[in-house]
Amino acid sequence: MALPIIETCFSPSMLQLYDLRDRIVVIIDVFRATSTISAALHHGAKEIIPVDDVDKCIELGKQIGNSITAGERNGAVAPGLQHGNSPLEYPREFVEGKSLVLTTTNGTRLLHMCHNADEIITGSFLNLGAVCEYLVQQKKPVLLACASWKDRYNLEDSLFAGAVYDAIGEHFEMNCDSTRAATHLYRLAKLDLYSFIQDSSHFLRLSAFNLQYDMEYCCQLNQHNVLIKYEDGRLVIK
Amino acid sequence: MALPIIETCFSPSMLQLYDLRDRIVVIIDVFRATSTISAALHHGAKEIIPVDDVDKCIELGKQIGNSITAGERNGAVAPGLQHGNSPLEYPREFVEGKSLVLTTTNGTRLLHMCHNADEIITGSFLNLGAVCEYLVQQKKPVLLACASWKDRYNLEDSLFAGAVYDAIGEHFEMNCDSTRAATHLYRLAKLDLYSFIQDSSHFLRLSAFNLQYDMEYCCQLNQHNVLIKYEDGRLVIK
Repeated sequence: MALPIIETCFSPSMLQLYDLRDRIVVIIDVFRATSTISAALHHGAKEIIPVDDVDKCIELGKQIGNSITAGERNGAVAPGLQHGNSPLEYPREFVEGKSLVLTTTNGTRLLHMCHNADEIITGSFLNLGAVCEYLVQQKKPVLLACASWKDRYNLEDSLFAGAVYDAIGEHFEMNCDSTRAATHLYRLAKLDLYSFIQDSSHFLRLSAFNLQYDMEYCCQLNQHNVLIKYEDGRLVIK
Repeated sequence: MALPIIETCFSPSMLQLYDLRDRIVVIIDVFRATSTISAALHHGAKEIIPVDDVDKCIELGKQIGNSITAGERNGAVAPGLQHGNSPLEYPREFVEGKSLVLTTTNGTRLLHMCHNADEIITGSFLNLGAVCEYLVQQKKPVLLACASWKDRYNLEDSLFAGAVYDAIGEHFEMNCDSTRAATHLYRLAKLDLYSFIQDSSHFLRLSAFNLQYDMEYCCQLNQHNVLIKYEDGRLVIK
């Protein structure tokens, strides 16, 4: 039986090159949206509602009982929101049973751009194992979709794409240079991912907000190893 | 004095993210447009006129005396044109003194997309040294622009971008993950570039036309080490 294909899209500006209709799309925004999503859901959040803009986030927060509004613009907590985009802000005692309404610069935007995909899941190093296990089980075509930074290629998201292919490539047919490059890079980086990633644009940008520990946390494998799907406008554990 | 910046654009679909007006843009289409351009000009072609479509190529060929029409679509010689897009098709005894009117799938299109750049030069491994020397001398901001394959990231063009940064990075300010990734990849590949590139989409595509030797030729450093500029609609040696 022919294997399903796997490809990697380095930037939302290249998304139109891919037909998403029969694909599982893995939304990747390692620093930090999809890492925060993994942590908050693993710690018992009821659901995460990703929204595109801050006003909508505030409005939804008012409508939904027992909710938290959270998000960032350009790396900092967005004005008017209660919380930021850090996986460390959502311990179980704070987030359990709550709805998190979240808006971020890149990840939530990409997620909405992929609305016509067959399925959408989210990926971060914190839930790498769960993502890989699910993709192997489903036997469907996959697009690893990097949120990037304002449409520019970034290292950390492509490293995650490479980590997926490094782990489960044998289960897929692959003829995609983005996936090849990502895998080469991940194999260079994997022995010490956090050190490798320190020479990257986003690391330097977020370091200006003293978020190094956040990023070190985001580089841990399988710390919040849950499978997360986007269904009916909400991200939930499956 | 502040160093000029250097960045890499992996695909024409990301070109709008960069302001080209004060930049030297290096057009990179290793397999094979910018390699063919290096070979033909080094072998004495008077000029190369890059055009977007086959009809225009044929029309200009009729208008210009002592000219050759050449180009490819999807890797093969385009119907109606005399010659293809191979650096090996243009030895001195054939091309000297002639005008080459050239159309290719990716490279010529990207070149025209960069019309508002301060300067445009073309880069291939065959003229890597000349490109690097010029960029260091000029002390201007640089964009390494990969032609890619129908807007999809490709390995060979990013490897060339990495080769440039590997050679002259110290002369520039760099905070660009595309350049970082390209440089990591080139440093992995440089000991045997041709072997590395055999696992790439374009290598596999062109191998179906038995063009392996062409690609091996394109992986040689400085075989046609001339600086090529785009001026008044023509590519010429400077």
